Amino acid sequence: MRYEGRRERLYQWMAGEGIGLVMFEHTEVRQDPSIRWMTGHPGEGLLFLGFDPRGGSHALLVPWDSNLAMIWANADAIIPYTEFERQPLKAVQGAVAYFKTPFGSKIEIPSVTPYPLFLHYVEALLDFDVLCRKGGIQQEVMALRSIKDPEEIQIYRTLAAITNDLIDLLEQDIRSGTLGTEGEVVRFIEMECRKRGCEGTGFETLAAGPERSFGIHPFPAYTTGEFATAGLSILDFGLKYAGYTSDVTLTFVRPPLSRAQEKLLTLTERAYRLALAMVAEGIATKTIAGAVDAFFGNAKKTMPHALGHGIGLEAHESPALRNHADNGWVLQPGMIFTLEPGLYDPVQGGCRLENDILLTGSGVEVLTNARIIRL
Amino acid sequence: MRYEGRRERLYQWMAGEGIGLVMFEHTEVRQDPSIRWMTGHPGEGLLFLGFDPRGGSHALLVPWDSNLAMIWANADAIIPYTEFERQPLKAVQGAVAYFKTPFGSKIEIPSVTPYPLFLHYVEALLDFDVLCRKGGIQQEVMALRSIKDPEEIQIYRTLAAITNDLIDLLEQDIRSGTLGTEGEVVRFIEMECRKRGCEGTGFETLAAGPERSFGIHPFPAYTTGEFATAGLSILDFGLKYAGYTSDVTLTFVRPPLSRAQEKLLTLTERAYRLALAMVAEGIATKTIAGAVDAFFGNAKKTMPHALGHGIGLEAHESPALRNHADNGWVLQPGMIFTLEPGLYDPVQGGCRLENDILLTGSGVEVLTNARIIRL
Repeated sequence: MRYEGRRERLYQWMAGEGIGLVMFEHTEVRQDPSIRWMTGHPGEGLLFLGFDPRGGSHALLVPWDSNLAMIWANADAIIPYTEFERQPLKAVQGAVAYFKTPFGSKIEIPSVTPYPLFLHYVEALLDFDVLCRKGGIQQEVMALRSIKDPEEIQIYRTLAAITNDLIDLLEQDIRSGTLGTEGEVVRFIEMECRKRGCEGTGFETLAAGPERSFGIHPFPAYTTGEFATAGLSILDFGLKYAGYTSDVTLTFVRPPLSRAQEKLLTLTERAYRLALAMVAEGIATKTIAGAVDAFFGNAKKTMPHALGHGIGLEAHESPALRNHADNGWVLQPGMIFTLEPGLYDPVQGGCRLENDILLTGSGVEVLTNARIIRL
Repeated sequence: MRYEGRRERLYQWMAGEGIGLVMFEHTEVRQDPSIRWMTGHPGEGLLFLGFDPRGGSHALLVPWDSNLAMIWANADAIIPYTEFERQPLKAVQGAVAYFKTPFGSKIEIPSVTPYPLFLHYVEALLDFDVLCRKGGIQQEVMALRSIKDPEEIQIYRTLAAITNDLIDLLEQDIRSGTLGTEGEVVRFIEMECRKRGCEGTGFETLAAGPERSFGIHPFPAYTTGEFATAGLSILDFGLKYAGYTSDVTLTFVRPPLSRAQEKLLTLTERAYRLALAMVAEGIATKTIAGAVDAFFGNAKKTMPHALGHGIGLEAHESPALRNHADNGWVLQPGMIFTLEPGLYDPVQGGCRLENDILLTGSGVEVLTNARIIRL
C-alpha cells in the first residue's frame, strides 16, 4: 500500500498535467533513489509510470538486476533491462509499446538528462512530445519526498536512536583511548551500525584529526593517522537504515587550544543555536542560512558551505538550507533536515556541529545528539 | 610538468577546434575526476581552460575547498567557489571576465549538463557560442585518459602489487577462518589497504556470501552474515592509490557444490580465458564482448552485465568492453581495463572472475591475481 499510495499521487499529478508516460532513471551515471521510494527496489534500473488505454495506471520497472527486483520491487510489471540491451532509448521505446501510449502524448524524461542525450530521446520518440524540464515530475517527487510520512518518521526515530547510541559509544571509546586513529573510528562505525540493523553508512565517513580538519571534507576521507589528539578533530558520518540516512558531525576537542581555536568553537556553537532557534513552520530556509552567514560575517569569518540540507533516501535532498537568491524552500511539518554550521582555518583546523532536525506540527525535535566533545 | 603537459595537449585541441574557453565540473551532482588528471586537485570544484588575449593559455581552478586546493592543485590561478556564490553560472561568467574571452567565442560546457541547465548557460552567455555535445572536450579527455602514460602505468604496478598482496592475505585468512563474515572481510580490506599507502577503496566493497551472491551487486553491499560458507561467495573490491583504482572480483567456493554450481564456475572460467586470449592491439572490444556473450548463449546462459571497462581515476571509464552496436572502442597500448565475466542464478548463487589487464606495445599483462578460490 505504501508504494501504491505514493504512485497514486503521481498518477494524479500526471493526469493534471496531461502527461501520458514518465520515466525515472537510477543508474551508475544518473542516480535517483526515487525509484526506491516508489517501488522499494534499491538497485539500478528505470521506472516508467503510465496510463494504459486499456484502463488504469501502471508502474513498469526495468531493473538492471532482475534477481534483486524479484525480492524487493513492488511494481505492476518487471521487464529485465537486458531485454532492451541495457539502453535507455530502447527501454523508453519498449515502455511506449508496453503502455500502448497514444501518438502525440507527452512523455517526460528525467530533468537531469544531458542535453546531447535529450536530443537522442527526441529523435527516438518522434511521434511524441518529449518533456525535460525543471518543475516537472522530478521536482514533484522531490517535493513529496521532502515531507516525510508517519512511517518514514518512525524509521527516522529508530535511525536516530542507533546514531545516538553510536555517538555515546564513540565518545566513551575515544575518551578511554580505545579508538585512537581515524581508521579505528571509521571501522567502529561501520561494524556497529550493521550489528544494529543498518544497511551501512549513508555516505563515506569523514574522520579528520587536527592535522586535517581544515578541510570541509578531508582528503582522503580517513587515514591511519591519529584522531582526537591536541586541537580540533572532525567526525562526519551518517547511518543508513531501511534506505534512509542520518547525517551528523561531531568535533572532538583536546587541549591545549589556541585562542583562535576557542573562537572557532564558540562561533560555531552560537551559530548552531541561532539557527536552531529560528526553525519554525513557514520560515524560508534562506532566512535562516542568511542569518548564520551574517553572524559569521560580523566576526569576519566565512562559512564555505551551506547551512544544511534535507535528508532521506539521499544524504542530500530537499529542502535546501542555503543563502542563495534562488532558494525558495519554506519549512513545513514533516521535513527532516540538517543544521551544520562550521568554520575551517588552514592553520587552526576546523570545527563543525551537525544534527538532524524534525519539524512537526507541534514543534521542533532535534533527533540526533551530536555535539562538540571536549576531552 | 605532468599536469602542464596534459593541459597543453588540450590547449592544442582547443586551438584546433577554435574554442576559446572550456569548463569542467566536479561537484556532488556531476562528478568528473578529469579535474584531478589536469591539476592534481582531488576535491570538488570547476576548472576552466582558456586562452588569454594578453597571451598564452591558462588554467583557472574554482575549488569548493580552497584550503585543500592550496595543498594539491597545480593551476595558473585559483579563485574560491564562494566568490561566485557557489553557482556554476556565476563562475562561468567570472571565468569569461578573468580570461577576457572575446565576444562571439566558442565556450564548451560539460557534455553531461542537463538540458534545462543548458538553457540557463545559453542565457548567461548570450554573447558567446555555447557548446554542449558528444565528441567534444570531455570525449577528448576521456580518450587521452584511456591511454595511460608511463607514470600512470607505474602507479598501477604499485597498486596491483598491493591488491595482489591483499588477495593472498584474504585467501589465507578465509581458509584459516580468521575472516568469517562479510563485514570482517570488508574491514580487513579497508584497514590493510590504508596501511599500505592507499587513499582508500575505489568503490564500496561488495561481499556476498552464498545466500546473497545471486545479485550482480549484492544489496546491501555487505552485512554481518557469514562469508565463504558452502556454495558460491563473491568478493568485488578495488583499492585506490594516488587517485587510481584497481577492480577485482574473487569467487570463493566451498563444497558441497551442486552440478549446476560447478557448471556456473566452469563456464565463467572458460569465458575469462576466452576473453583474455582475444586481447590484442587493434581488436574491437565489441568483438571480445560479443564472443563471450555467444559462448554463454551456447550454454543457454546470459551474462547480465558488460564484459569489462577501463579503470583509472574512475572505477569505470574508457574503454568500454560491451557487446553494443554503438561501442566503437578498439584496444590500444597503454589501456588498462577489466575482464569480468560472471553468471548469477537466484537459487544457485553467482560467480564472477575479474582481473585488471594492461595492454602494452609488446603484449598483454594480467596485472592482478584474482581467481576462483576453492576452499
